Amino acid sequence: MPHTESLQTALTQTHARIKPYIHDTPVLTSRLLNELAGASLYFKCENFQRMGAFKMRGAVNAIMQLSPEQQRHGVVTHSSGNFAQALALAAQSLGVTAYIVMPSNAPRVKKEAVLAYGGQVIDCAPTLSAREQTAQQLVTERGAAFIHPSNDLHVILGQGTAAVELLARQPDLTYLFTPVGGGGLLAGTILAAQGFGRSCRVVAGEPETMDDAFRSLQSGRIEENASGDTIADGLKTQLGDLNFPIIQQGVEEIILVSEAEIVAAMRLIWERLKIVVEASSAVALAALLKNKAAYAGQSIGIILSGGNVDLGKLPF
Amino acid sequence: MPHTESLQTALTQTHARIKPYIHDTPVLTSRLLNELAGASLYFKCENFQRMGAFKMRGAVNAIMQLSPEQQRHGVVTHSSGNFAQALALAAQSLGVTAYIVMPSNAPRVKKEAVLAYGGQVIDCAPTLSAREQTAQQLVTERGAAFIHPSNDLHVILGQGTAAVELLARQPDLTYLFTPVGGGGLLAGTILAAQGFGRSCRVVAGEPETMDDAFRSLQSGRIEENASGDTIADGLKTQLGDLNFPIIQQGVEEIILVSEAEIVAAMRLIWERLKIVVEASSAVALAALLKNKAAYAGQSIGIILSGGNVDLGKLPF
Repeated sequence: MPHTESLQTALTQTHARIKPYIHDTPVLTSRLLNELAGASLYFKCENFQRMGAFKMRGAVNAIMQLSPEQQRHGVVTHSSGNFAQALALAAQSLGVTAYIVMPSNAPRVKKEAVLAYGGQVIDCAPTLSAREQTAQQLVTERGAAFIHPSNDLHVILGQGTAAVELLARQPDLTYLFTPVGGGGLLAGTILAAQGFGRSCRVVAGEPETMDDAFRSLQSGRIEENASGDTIADGLKTQLGDLNFPIIQQGVEEIILVSEAEIVAAMRLIWERLKIVVEASSAVALAALLKNKAAYAGQSIGIILSGGNVDLGKLPF
Repeated sequence: MPHTESLQTALTQTHARIKPYIHDTPVLTSRLLNELAGASLYFKCENFQRMGAFKMRGAVNAIMQLSPEQQRHGVVTHSSGNFAQALALAAQSLGVTAYIVMPSNAPRVKKEAVLAYGGQVIDCAPTLSAREQTAQQLVTERGAAFIHPSNDLHVILGQGTAAVELLARQPDLTYLFTPVGGGGLLAGTILAAQGFGRSCRVVAGEPETMDDAFRSLQSGRIEENASGDTIADGLKTQLGDLNFPIIQQGVEEIILVSEAEIVAAMRLIWERLKIVVEASSAVALAALLKNKAAYAGQSIGIILSGGNVDLGKLPF
């Protein structure tokens, strides 16, 4: 299959490229969680990734795909989440300037994290148009390259390398579960399953209150989130026109989960795996537990997306 | 040195004996924590051990050293902490009955954990004499073998295997840090450092409010804790006459730490290593950070003793 071969090549090259700058994160298992799910679970721990989330992978790859000339002018994104920190640390590791556009009301701890990784924080008014305008200004005035947190093919391929590593260790997985927010991790994981899985299908979990991907899959076009909030704050973003087609053709099912189900899954991960993961990470396990009858007896990889939590604001 | 040789033999045999029943737990590092300490730190993650703490090692070893005849009559201990769960799970793994004497006012969750590991919970009045009497009754009436949580040579050797594994990966450690409570982990770690270290010395951290080991070292005899409490609840126990002499001849220093220093170190471990550890585990890092000038530039192993926390009662 030429499709599979070209995917393998693209992902293999991506992984080789970013490897010196990322961790090959460990895979954890738990007898009790296996019993609870009635399946064999393999947790890919991206909470142990550099800067604490899988986003490091895509950020490194996107910067490395720029020409030396482009790299000299720096990179820019707008984000107040993990991608802000990821782009800052990736840029620092590669000797590139990173401009991170953040709303003036972003939590101070988020700005400090970007600064600690050597990024330049550019304040803007707390509206989407102000964010876009400020980022655009940095592109035109300083020649910085804009890198989108999820709707960018190099970012998508970078995120897919988490599943590439997992499938290298567990080649017989029959399913891979991820959360879906902006769609970069889900799209990348689908490409990895198609390239390296032996009949491995991909399922996503999504918060009920932020169900744009679920509705987009039903309607066949990108739907927007209305209002609504979720504890899985990393998932409060929209699908994009580059990752939606990949998700549309490749996802098996998107399972909606309630806030209580997310917190319960997060607690299970903390108590049983003894690791710190953010709420977004728990959405994939919550989805599996919700539909566990359908996946009984399967061999399932679960991507734990990150571990950046505010210990002063835990839901327990 | 015959002393070193016999230690190596005893620990090597212990490790080989218990290996099928324990995890060789991972070792984590963090650039930021290295910078903070001004030293190279290697965290031995016993929070990932079976039942969530290093105590599994000693419990397995103690039961395996009993004769088949003794094993047929079961084992007994009194504990409401990690050793209760450890002995229950170790006994279950080895097909032995475990009687765990617990005060009637012990938290329900602790009793349920013992039951979940197949142990038999024997209630007693909440006094030390009632605990001892009830345990003694099981010894005389049912022929069960009493196993002390820390003051038992086989338990001490078992606990020492955590440091044996760590030194196998990092043979050039110049220091090993552990918490000290009952003294089993500290004594076992000292034996491991003497047997397998290349000039590796051992330092312990102890809560200021529960400083019996610190005072015992000064006075030369086992001192008791008066009243007092600590968030590091695994350390609310006394040294014993078997582990004290080992500690006395082998510990470099015992560093007292405040409750605030324990919580701060616990928070650093959760935020930077992204793992769940109990407060007792953080005492060793707290001790190092308190005296970090004295250990600058060293290569330091830190035993993180366990990860059994009540997420509803976190100090953050």
